[in-house]
Amino acid sequence: MNGSSQLPKVVVIGAGGVGVIGALSLCYKGLSNVSLAIRSDYDLVEKQGYKITSCDYGQFESWKPHHVYRTVEDASQSGQFFDYIVVTTKNIPDGPTHSTVPQVIRPLVESNHKLSRGRQTNVLLMQNGIDIEKEIWSVFDKNQYHLNVLSGIQLIGSTKVAPGVIDHVGRDHLLVGAFESENEEAVKAAKRFVELYRNEGKNHAEFDASVRYSRWKKLLYNAAINTATALVGLDVPRCLEFGVDRKSTEENVFKPAMREIISIAATEDVLLDESLITFFVEITRHIMFKPSMCVDHEKGQLMELEVILGNPLKIARKNGVQTPVLSMLYYLLVMVQGLLREKNGLLKFDESKAELVETKQSL
Amino acid sequence: MNGSSQLPKVVVIGAGGVGVIGALSLCYKGLSNVSLAIRSDYDLVEKQGYKITSCDYGQFESWKPHHVYRTVEDASQSGQFFDYIVVTTKNIPDGPTHSTVPQVIRPLVESNHKLSRGRQTNVLLMQNGIDIEKEIWSVFDKNQYHLNVLSGIQLIGSTKVAPGVIDHVGRDHLLVGAFESENEEAVKAAKRFVELYRNEGKNHAEFDASVRYSRWKKLLYNAAINTATALVGLDVPRCLEFGVDRKSTEENVFKPAMREIISIAATEDVLLDESLITFFVEITRHIMFKPSMCVDHEKGQLMELEVILGNPLKIARKNGVQTPVLSMLYYLLVMVQGLLREKNGLLKFDESKAELVETKQSL
Repeated sequence: MNGSSQLPKVVVIGAGGVGVIGALSLCYKGLSNVSLAIRSDYDLVEKQGYKITSCDYGQFESWKPHHVYRTVEDASQSGQFFDYIVVTTKNIPDGPTHSTVPQVIRPLVESNHKLSRGRQTNVLLMQNGIDIEKEIWSVFDKNQYHLNVLSGIQLIGSTKVAPGVIDHVGRDHLLVGAFESENEEAVKAAKRFVELYRNEGKNHAEFDASVRYSRWKKLLYNAAINTATALVGLDVPRCLEFGVDRKSTEENVFKPAMREIISIAATEDVLLDESLITFFVEITRHIMFKPSMCVDHEKGQLMELEVILGNPLKIARKNGVQTPVLSMLYYLLVMVQGLLREKNGLLKFDESKAELVETKQSL
Repeated sequence: MNGSSQLPKVVVIGAGGVGVIGALSLCYKGLSNVSLAIRSDYDLVEKQGYKITSCDYGQFESWKPHHVYRTVEDASQSGQFFDYIVVTTKNIPDGPTHSTVPQVIRPLVESNHKLSRGRQTNVLLMQNGIDIEKEIWSVFDKNQYHLNVLSGIQLIGSTKVAPGVIDHVGRDHLLVGAFESENEEAVKAAKRFVELYRNEGKNHAEFDASVRYSRWKKLLYNAAINTATALVGLDVPRCLEFGVDRKSTEENVFKPAMREIISIAATEDVLLDESLITFFVEITRHIMFKPSMCVDHEKGQLMELEVILGNPLKIARKNGVQTPVLSMLYYLLVMVQGLLREKNGLLKFDESKAELVETKQSL
């Protein structure tokens, strides 16, 4: 383990299905020194490691990365400079202030800054959504902190099924690129990360020269299908099959919503082919799967509504694109998110007055 | 009780909050002989009657109408001719075939027909929705059965809170008219029913010369607000308050949906004033209330989706009215109704094939 101390240092934030398999992929390759900020399962994992069943890497009874920390603060006080800060948590700008992405990474960005001024800190957002890099740059001065923000777009089926237990069933497929595609240093950092992460014959990791295109492409699915399933509480095949004449869901909800995303993306010079619409409907038609927002709603957890749907709609408004279907999905889901915020203590509703109680934290 | 045997005979179908208070109103007036088809609570009620707490009529420990029957079939075999068949069940054409309104009233319509050919049978639909009379006329020949279909539009807060226990908290307000406003006999029957039902100083019952206007007016609320609350699972004040800037729900969902209803109604020569839009939002803003479809969804019961939203959208399609907001609500709620139909055994979904199993009963 000491032999790895001169390797690039990576800290992974978020120890769910994505974060743990991410840390495992990096360790498996052996070209980086890997830390993981764990939070709730820390005591268990520190003692006995993770039990992992992985379609890419096989079976582990007691696996740990090079370092585990209880919190991001603990990692930031370890005296290490982290070349990569990999964020795998959900991105919920309307969630609790302390768990928004800039607040979560702040201790590490600050400790890196103190430890080695001038050395590059690369923040890799392995998260859903559009314009998620802007929230980082609105908080941290890019030049002062020598900050690159990298984009990770991942397809993976991996779930924490119990404390310390990870079930990884769907092959890891990761695209990494720089949000600023002209920034050579950032591009280099993205390419380097792919080298640290890619395990030939196991996972798939690839440098992505057109990050923004890939994000909009993934958004076709998320903004149209993920959102609708969250509203009606159904897996994708049931959504399709329960439509009028088994057709209305795709013809009147999924596809029009995707066409609106294509229109919005076009005003940002991102050209998505119409054939992707059919592609996304067809690949999901026969897979019994509940997308993330649907699962979050069911579990009473906040949904990634703003980065998946709120942000593209802001762009639509700015660029004058009509979005009747997406807007309706948004205005309905905003109510659901309100209920989730209430359940999670982020807002108070006074039933005796039938009114919101004004609080300091609001959207 | 025998003294009432020469009075007009009324049978009330459906013994929920609406049906029991309806039967009570008729009995209280004393101008009709009242039967009630009870179904699930029959044994209890037959033995000990209803316990009723009513804002209109006070407290009853053990109340029964003149006759109670376990089923509509039993009522139809009682040898009585019923002048009025009052239907207070939910109207769900996409529910089980045996509980659609024509099937439910069939035994009584047939027994009336046999008992006294030529005498008029009046079917009063105390139910939500538009075009609900058409389903009756598509099944029963109006002339053969000497059938009038009457429209009852009711505002009431009354709930069966336990078997045999009715809690009536919101004053009964009933409009009764003839679906065929030119049919003098039907109009006369409607006016007569109001006389049987109205209790001065207690409830409010009124003849309605423009039934279709009143139904469209009530639909403003039901098609726009009832539907949206069912989708998001929230009472009306929370829907309003959880909107973006506490505004988007009314500005982008409720009001546009109501404007679409106004446009559809206009193509049927029903002119609804724009001021009703604000009226309906404002009367609901401060009352903690979950509309019926929202409650049905929560309870896992089928919603009155077709009569409240499906039928107006059919009219819109026929008359070429654009309905982006209502259509979206409909296509989303159709999926929810699919889940409710699955839960209620009306359809089967094969998860291994991710497909609906074709069954005899479909929409």
